[in-house]
Amino acid sequence: MTTPTAPQSLSSIMDGNSFQARDLDTLPAAERELITRRMAALGPSYRLFYKAPVHAERAEGCYLYSPDGTRYLDAYNNVASVGHANPAVVAAVASQMSRLNTHTRYLQDGIVDYSERLLATLPAHLDTAMFTNSGSEANDLAIRVARLWTGGEGVVVTAEAYHGTTELLSRVSPAISGGFPDDPTVRVIPAPDTYRVDTEDMGAWFAARVREAFEDLQAHGITPAAFLADSIFSSDGIFPDPAGFLHPAIEVCREFGALFISDEVQPGFGRTGDTFWGFERHGIDADLVSMGKPMGNGIPVAALVGRSEILGRFGKEVPYFNTFGGNSVSIAAAAAVLTFMQDTDLRSSVASVGADLKAAISGLTADLPWVGDVRGRGLYIGVEVVRDRDTREPDSVRALELVNAMRERHVLISVAGPGNNVLKVRPPLVFGGAEVALFAERFQDALMAVERR
Amino acid sequence: MTTPTAPQSLSSIMDGNSFQARDLDTLPAAERELITRRMAALGPSYRLFYKAPVHAERAEGCYLYSPDGTRYLDAYNNVASVGHANPAVVAAVASQMSRLNTHTRYLQDGIVDYSERLLATLPAHLDTAMFTNSGSEANDLAIRVARLWTGGEGVVVTAEAYHGTTELLSRVSPAISGGFPDDPTVRVIPAPDTYRVDTEDMGAWFAARVREAFEDLQAHGITPAAFLADSIFSSDGIFPDPAGFLHPAIEVCREFGALFISDEVQPGFGRTGDTFWGFERHGIDADLVSMGKPMGNGIPVAALVGRSEILGRFGKEVPYFNTFGGNSVSIAAAAAVLTFMQDTDLRSSVASVGADLKAAISGLTADLPWVGDVRGRGLYIGVEVVRDRDTREPDSVRALELVNAMRERHVLISVAGPGNNVLKVRPPLVFGGAEVALFAERFQDALMAVERR
Repeated sequence: MTTPTAPQSLSSIMDGNSFQARDLDTLPAAERELITRRMAALGPSYRLFYKAPVHAERAEGCYLYSPDGTRYLDAYNNVASVGHANPAVVAAVASQMSRLNTHTRYLQDGIVDYSERLLATLPAHLDTAMFTNSGSEANDLAIRVARLWTGGEGVVVTAEAYHGTTELLSRVSPAISGGFPDDPTVRVIPAPDTYRVDTEDMGAWFAARVREAFEDLQAHGITPAAFLADSIFSSDGIFPDPAGFLHPAIEVCREFGALFISDEVQPGFGRTGDTFWGFERHGIDADLVSMGKPMGNGIPVAALVGRSEILGRFGKEVPYFNTFGGNSVSIAAAAAVLTFMQDTDLRSSVASVGADLKAAISGLTADLPWVGDVRGRGLYIGVEVVRDRDTREPDSVRALELVNAMRERHVLISVAGPGNNVLKVRPPLVFGGAEVALFAERFQDALMAVERR
Repeated sequence: MTTPTAPQSLSSIMDGNSFQARDLDTLPAAERELITRRMAALGPSYRLFYKAPVHAERAEGCYLYSPDGTRYLDAYNNVASVGHANPAVVAAVASQMSRLNTHTRYLQDGIVDYSERLLATLPAHLDTAMFTNSGSEANDLAIRVARLWTGGEGVVVTAEAYHGTTELLSRVSPAISGGFPDDPTVRVIPAPDTYRVDTEDMGAWFAARVREAFEDLQAHGITPAAFLADSIFSSDGIFPDPAGFLHPAIEVCREFGALFISDEVQPGFGRTGDTFWGFERHGIDADLVSMGKPMGNGIPVAALVGRSEILGRFGKEVPYFNTFGGNSVSIAAAAAVLTFMQDTDLRSSVASVGADLKAAISGLTADLPWVGDVRGRGLYIGVEVVRDRDTREPDSVRALELVNAMRERHVLISVAGPGNNVLKVRPPLVFGGAEVALFAERFQDALMAVERR
């Protein structure tokens, strides 16, 4: 039971797969020059992926293209969820932009229509929506709302959680908490690591961790406000299963009078294939639901949804206005995404294609002693690269070799988890059979290359 | 010298000009129905402007249109700075969207080119840019950066300051601090109210307030980190003059080892007509510069610019990645805005049109005993509505009558200031002579209507 502490190095979510300036001389002149200009103008916060960064110029569907015409299979990006340059989204944005783009202090049909459609995808008690520009703004707002509602301050998160970029969120994102002071109101619990935790009942085990955290908060005189988690435990290393294991934890959360904030930035909008929202897979209720990344297919738009009594109290007591939040164009993008998903029954496709992709990965790695686990749901798959299957010790070096071997073979993936050793395979949701076949072919080749080293 | 305290009511920035549900029955059926649906889906955070909200369907240049074809002159919106539905921005966004929209972990030309162009508008020592989705995210980041750099926590802001929507910013935004606890690291100083403060030397007077605040922080063991202000003091009631009065305050800020964060969300991008950035009008240096609203003409994009040693240290020590921040499309929008401004020499137009607009307003109100002051710079003009010119007591009731009288005459303005009594006239920067004439005609009519009451 600890508050977040500074990691020894920049954590996986930020640095695991980063280009290092020392490799600059290995790159072609054009990229070398552009990276040098970039480093001068943007500074060191701006890290690039891969030993040899990908120079992106255009993209379509599941493919990115560099200026020289090289095609990359995108098995990483969850923002362009309905496909890069999705024509329906492009058309909706262009049309709305040429007509009107303004804020929510004027009456507009678009935001009302979309809100009703969005709320219809959620359980009936989640009946109010507020719009922001990023999942970060939504999570920041969620914690403010939970604290006002409960009168408490205490927030519980998992060990490698990442919930966004604001100062408040840096305090509840142990994955990036380096350089910032501990926060006495935050408690960090272990992730539901089904690969390493020795338990027959993950539900009971995880609920016990949540209980300990809330008890520790109370013991320090801090009233519980929220348990904040994404139900796929993305930055912890991808732990979606078994579906339902979150149920006892949420019961504990309720017992302590805290709200459950379901961070759906990663699992939401059909990513898991099973349900439209990640928390629904677990058969649980959420009090507040934050969402972002894929919502507008890349146009900044995000939201916080919750029960009307909770968001209503905040709205009455605390002035909140978000200039760009819910602007006409962002809403048009979000509406086009939702229409595309519904018209194409994208979630069903995610379920079947995701199962095929996972089966292919499992098949190719079944005999490799340094691949310990293949897990995930829908189009979010994690592959544990380890020293060996007995110790299960993370092997970040080999994982990153594999990531870079895939990049050399023009397939984009990255790593997750506290050990930087879980391959993160998380393509656009329009991934199809052809993409699974291409991925498998390149993955087999990359595995062999890395195996041989 | 106080920390922020909860206001008695929701403050001007949020509630001064809000539609009240009790007026619902006075509206036409179509608006009544849409507002009812909107209240149900969005909750009470979503306030509408005016006694009779404006139903917006399309917009062009300086004009908004409702579904029935009514045309409104927009003398309020500073986001659509290069004009509503500016064709160059629409084309740039549509083109970029159909080509590529992704994040900054891939190498892209657009963000490097734009960063260099943006930095070229700023003093040479401000040589590094970081991109966010909103001015809020930029200000939140600015405070984190300032605290890391100085090792201090103390932040000084003005009495009715508003710096954004995040939890951290709610603590440094007295305008909306209702419902949240005081923050011991924040000090609030009076605004440089040139209308009410009795001083011959605003520079010395204001610098003394900044000094008192930093001294009080130190007396409480809190190391100064930043003075955060927008140089036009927008939500305080619009106090841009005399140009240069901020100079002594910034000297004090430096003396205490604190950074000056220039919040350019309001005065930046040529709003004042005098200079491209508000702080330049005062002949001062900024350590960090945040910007947002007009940057992408409505596409969410914002930035924090600063000295490379300051942002570089943050970048090296603190992982920061903003998924949508600096995405290809937001950058394309920002680049199109900058090109438009430079190609049309928009700032010069702002200077001359703004002078004409202010002269027109001054002329029409010169003999009205209930208009105490007309001030502002470029296209940001404030008009003090008071009980009388002797007491200078704010008259919010009459100010809001005037705002609604203008809305009835199809001209959009609002109010600012702690007393909800300063007319806020802040049109798109493409406002021209025809718009000044139309504004003046309607304003004269509205003044007479309100005078007669």
